[in-house]
Amino acid sequence: MTTSAVDTRHLAINTIRTLSMDAVQKANSGHPGTPMALAPVAYCLWNDHLNYDPEHPGWPGRDRFVLSCGHASMLLYSVLHLAGVKNSDGSPAVSMEDIKNFRQFGSPCAGHPEHGEAAGIETTTGPLGQGIANSVGMAISGKWMSGRYDFEDCDFDVYALCSDGDVMEGVGMEAASLAGHLKLDNLCWIYDDNQITIEGRTDLAFSEDVAARFESMGWSALTVEDANDLDAIDRAISQFKENKSQPTIIVLNSIIGYGAPNKQDTASAHGSPLGEDEIQLAKQSYDWSNEKFTVPPGVMELFEENLGRRGSAAYEKWQSNWAEFAAGNPASANDLQSIFDRRLPDDWESVLPEFPADPKGMATRVSSGKVLNAVAGKIGWMIGGSADLAGSNKSLIEDADAGHFSADHFAGRNFHFGIREHAMASICNGMALSGIRSYAATFAVFTDYMRPAMRLSGLMHQPVLYILTHDSIGLGEDGPTHQPVEHLASCRAIPNLLVMRPADANEVSQCYGVAIGQNKRPAAMFLTRQNVPTFDRSKLGDPRGTRQGGYILLDTDGNPDVILMGTGSEVEICLQAAMTLSDEGIRARVVSMPCFELFEEQSADYRESVLPSSVVARVAVEAGIEMGWLRFLGSHGRFVGMTGFGASAPSEELYEHFGITAENVCRAAREQVAASRN
Amino acid sequence: MTTSAVDTRHLAINTIRTLSMDAVQKANSGHPGTPMALAPVAYCLWNDHLNYDPEHPGWPGRDRFVLSCGHASMLLYSVLHLAGVKNSDGSPAVSMEDIKNFRQFGSPCAGHPEHGEAAGIETTTGPLGQGIANSVGMAISGKWMSGRYDFEDCDFDVYALCSDGDVMEGVGMEAASLAGHLKLDNLCWIYDDNQITIEGRTDLAFSEDVAARFESMGWSALTVEDANDLDAIDRAISQFKENKSQPTIIVLNSIIGYGAPNKQDTASAHGSPLGEDEIQLAKQSYDWSNEKFTVPPGVMELFEENLGRRGSAAYEKWQSNWAEFAAGNPASANDLQSIFDRRLPDDWESVLPEFPADPKGMATRVSSGKVLNAVAGKIGWMIGGSADLAGSNKSLIEDADAGHFSADHFAGRNFHFGIREHAMASICNGMALSGIRSYAATFAVFTDYMRPAMRLSGLMHQPVLYILTHDSIGLGEDGPTHQPVEHLASCRAIPNLLVMRPADANEVSQCYGVAIGQNKRPAAMFLTRQNVPTFDRSKLGDPRGTRQGGYILLDTDGNPDVILMGTGSEVEICLQAAMTLSDEGIRARVVSMPCFELFEEQSADYRESVLPSSVVARVAVEAGIEMGWLRFLGSHGRFVGMTGFGASAPSEELYEHFGITAENVCRAAREQVAASRN
Repeated sequence: MTTSAVDTRHLAINTIRTLSMDAVQKANSGHPGTPMALAPVAYCLWNDHLNYDPEHPGWPGRDRFVLSCGHASMLLYSVLHLAGVKNSDGSPAVSMEDIKNFRQFGSPCAGHPEHGEAAGIETTTGPLGQGIANSVGMAISGKWMSGRYDFEDCDFDVYALCSDGDVMEGVGMEAASLAGHLKLDNLCWIYDDNQITIEGRTDLAFSEDVAARFESMGWSALTVEDANDLDAIDRAISQFKENKSQPTIIVLNSIIGYGAPNKQDTASAHGSPLGEDEIQLAKQSYDWSNEKFTVPPGVMELFEENLGRRGSAAYEKWQSNWAEFAAGNPASANDLQSIFDRRLPDDWESVLPEFPADPKGMATRVSSGKVLNAVAGKIGWMIGGSADLAGSNKSLIEDADAGHFSADHFAGRNFHFGIREHAMASICNGMALSGIRSYAATFAVFTDYMRPAMRLSGLMHQPVLYILTHDSIGLGEDGPTHQPVEHLASCRAIPNLLVMRPADANEVSQCYGVAIGQNKRPAAMFLTRQNVPTFDRSKLGDPRGTRQGGYILLDTDGNPDVILMGTGSEVEICLQAAMTLSDEGIRARVVSMPCFELFEEQSADYRESVLPSSVVARVAVEAGIEMGWLRFLGSHGRFVGMTGFGASAPSEELYEHFGITAENVCRAAREQVAASRN
Repeated sequence: MTTSAVDTRHLAINTIRTLSMDAVQKANSGHPGTPMALAPVAYCLWNDHLNYDPEHPGWPGRDRFVLSCGHASMLLYSVLHLAGVKNSDGSPAVSMEDIKNFRQFGSPCAGHPEHGEAAGIETTTGPLGQGIANSVGMAISGKWMSGRYDFEDCDFDVYALCSDGDVMEGVGMEAASLAGHLKLDNLCWIYDDNQITIEGRTDLAFSEDVAARFESMGWSALTVEDANDLDAIDRAISQFKENKSQPTIIVLNSIIGYGAPNKQDTASAHGSPLGEDEIQLAKQSYDWSNEKFTVPPGVMELFEENLGRRGSAAYEKWQSNWAEFAAGNPASANDLQSIFDRRLPDDWESVLPEFPADPKGMATRVSSGKVLNAVAGKIGWMIGGSADLAGSNKSLIEDADAGHFSADHFAGRNFHFGIREHAMASICNGMALSGIRSYAATFAVFTDYMRPAMRLSGLMHQPVLYILTHDSIGLGEDGPTHQPVEHLASCRAIPNLLVMRPADANEVSQCYGVAIGQNKRPAAMFLTRQNVPTFDRSKLGDPRGTRQGGYILLDTDGNPDVILMGTGSEVEICLQAAMTLSDEGIRARVVSMPCFELFEEQSADYRESVLPSSVVARVAVEAGIEMGWLRFLGSHGRFVGMTGFGASAPSEELYEHFGITAENVCRAAREQVAASRN
């Protein structure tokens, strides 16, 4: 390499550093230290290794770059800018103006990288551990697409930069354990071992041997002694690429805030602007001018010559391989193209089962299993699994060809996620980001374990399906630790998440119709352990009403005296109560309300037709807490449900004990009707 | 040992097995396989090692036994029965009748062990990973009490039996990492390596080298090849006791459902009754009679002779050491006795600061730091820390004598929990279970990371204090990943948790007054990053109204036309709006509502006096979602707040953008008043 080329490399690296420092300073908030430390590895990765075409950042065969330490967002924005990554309309993903507006309203350069704000932001990061766990899902996607469809050009590499926090967080450890088990050799984590956390030196709280820990989990662990040693970094990345049986972690010894003489290697370089004086000194140490937001000549050209040229050639090569593959394998290519385009087969809904009336019925987890299998039969890229509860969750794709995903069989559609709910959800996010339709199953109470990842499904608009069984005290003997009481409410609180609780098998089918049809929203489906009847719809409302979120299941002749409403297993209680009330001459309408969010999206007219404001006598029944129901109950309505934790006993006894019975609904209804007549 | 003694040992072990099988069968639900596998180690631990007096199971110096694999609850119940553990009234903690009522309503033998249901259940387990993480908190408690007060008899040992799930769950890994870092040599985990999970063989999802992983984290790892080899178990436990510098994990190779010829070593022995036929065969293999619920002669006597005699002597010795210590160290003894009795100093509330009015004010996280320090000055056993955000959370006890808890200084009161929110909360539960007043601090958005443990604080009635700063979009530039929007609602959903959001420094002081005064409830305090004024109370309601959960902060002459209510940083907006409205001739009452749960506990009269039902014009303001507010707003009220995720920008711009402004409150109030006059 010529001296001038070497010089330009350092120029490029220092450009990343100075842009990051300047942007944080201008915003007067942010994290300068990590971009300054990691500029060399980011440079080396992007310029010399990444299979990435800045002109086509959506190219499905691209290598993925995840900045798991999302607080170092200026590192990513600087690189996206210098690499000339383009939005689909040809505009720069990150312009200099955007960088100058770092952390300001409307800038794609948010405090933490937000997926969707600019091309090149592969996933939203910031909550620690999530990015690396997502990266496992991305690596799985590459393995699965190439394994399932025998198109090896989908076996892209996934790189994640991560911090102490990422490797300390449980979700990151769970994901690492699974990645090692699955021998994901397309996955490379680069661990920024800077010895500094917010509270001080990492050894205040963290003294384990990280390399040994990863090795115990089946990873290859490499060390780079000096984060500024480009050759060593290059060698380590090359070693990763040569390893065809393990994921790799590169432990990179870095100095946070490198170059800032008074702040480097201290926590004070982490989360605040350096200050003008210190920036000036740092720039001196880089032999840099004092100007702000400078990109010296040659820097963008260097990226263009290396990353750009290499990426463009790879992109072209991929396109021609793809054309050839598609010609020879039209069915597989059609599936893959659907994944790339996030399309579903036109007629996929035709497979949604209709269930005959059956008073004995079946648990909604059972009908969910049937519907899941019907849908999975049509959508070959619907894949997922359970956190070790597949049998209980009825989440297995049973088709003989489906198989299990393993290190020996990347074509499998069923995943054994292990007892790792949090990583499961985060991995499903990573899979969804590749266009795959992923689902995650566990007991409803364990939504608590994976909530940070569920929130990110919503924030990133990823249509992950959460299959949540054993959805109330109806699970019985396992007791309060396993009985969701507040989980419907707390999931309904998550923005942009559809929470569904179908009442019978046909509502389950319709819920799948809605959930799978989503392209921008995750869905959480709450399902019973215990049997519920499949309603005789000849006498009741059409289950397609489910799609409006709430609908009249049983109506009265003339205006109702009272409205009974519920979800899931408690709708049957409403129906029983309505019959008793009818015998007493009280006209009770029954409304099934499987999805609050969808109901709220309906027209005011529709909502009024289901819940006429003139009928103030209302009773809602749900084996959970009341939170969230008042909007349908109004001030005068009554709620029949839980007020605290459950207990360990057979299901029927618990319903009786906690008073979630038709008798109590009738009593509440009578009082409501009497009050409304006064 | 005589042959008959050896025989009785096996008799005891098989009694544990058969009681467990019989109870699960009778309940027709439960987990027989693990008790059958682990009966020998449980026997050996209790009979030969545990420092535990069945007559005094509340003795503070006792060794702790945690059944982290809570689904194996019958193992614990069988042992508590056979060991003759007594409730404080002298009745058996677990009677044979209780065992026969396993998993039935009212039996202390719940599906999973529930702390408080019977003496000897040290913590509630079932959600995997929680028990072992609690055990780290318990081990810390022992180290801390002995280190802080120089009474080494408090340095008890803590044993936890754990399963694949426990060691796969992230929270367990986080806790293990911290335990290794802290060199907790009083902590012993026994890992039931049975190679079976619910979905099949563990190697479907889990192939790491567990011993090596723990060694990488600073643990001593021992292996017992055969779970039925009592001598090997004994040797391993003895080795743990001799290790004075590391926690120990004993990897125990066991056979799930040991003795059941057709089900042992398969997943079918895990979570369902064995069936009468298989039970009969298993009993044959143990050389057992076919009777149900049998305790052969000699078994309880064996526990009495070993555990009982040893425990009673240890208890007596401890009492005499304690008397001697107390005589020489009355102040320390008084502190320790307060911990044991869960008492606070009588006059502790006298230290709650009063803050002078200050229009500039301070962030509530800052006033929280001041109040925390005042309280910690009075309550020496209030200890805790942050998940690497102490500076931001203002959660440091600053007293020069407080120090940091570390392997070299077990007397320290400040904890560096590392970037491990989930383990932090679970460890705080373990500390609270020892009577220590523990607190856990992080950003409010990360409550999602520790929610399963927060739920268990509520379920176990442990008064852990959660200090949650950066409580809204008011944190500004960090953006939507860091901005809690739904977290107030989702925390309010957790039963038995007080959720508090004080509006100014004096409300913070009062909130601490309530939270610390709790003995049976955890509290979650939501605190601002940004400054809020300290209100001039000469013109406003007394901050002691905070203790009613909601109170009139600003009243009107005569009946109010409209009620404005809010929490935290939005109360100031209500006050501003009230002034504007007053200028327009609209009488607006302002209600501060720092704690919904407390307000709901007040008398109907009090609630009516604050929110008179005659005033239907109401506006609530909170920089979060509306969920939970309707109960105070009524059907006609209006909510001003968030409807989805936040954004990255300076705080003031975000409030403006999302319309959480005095102007919007005024507009809503005017409309409300106009509507209510129609």
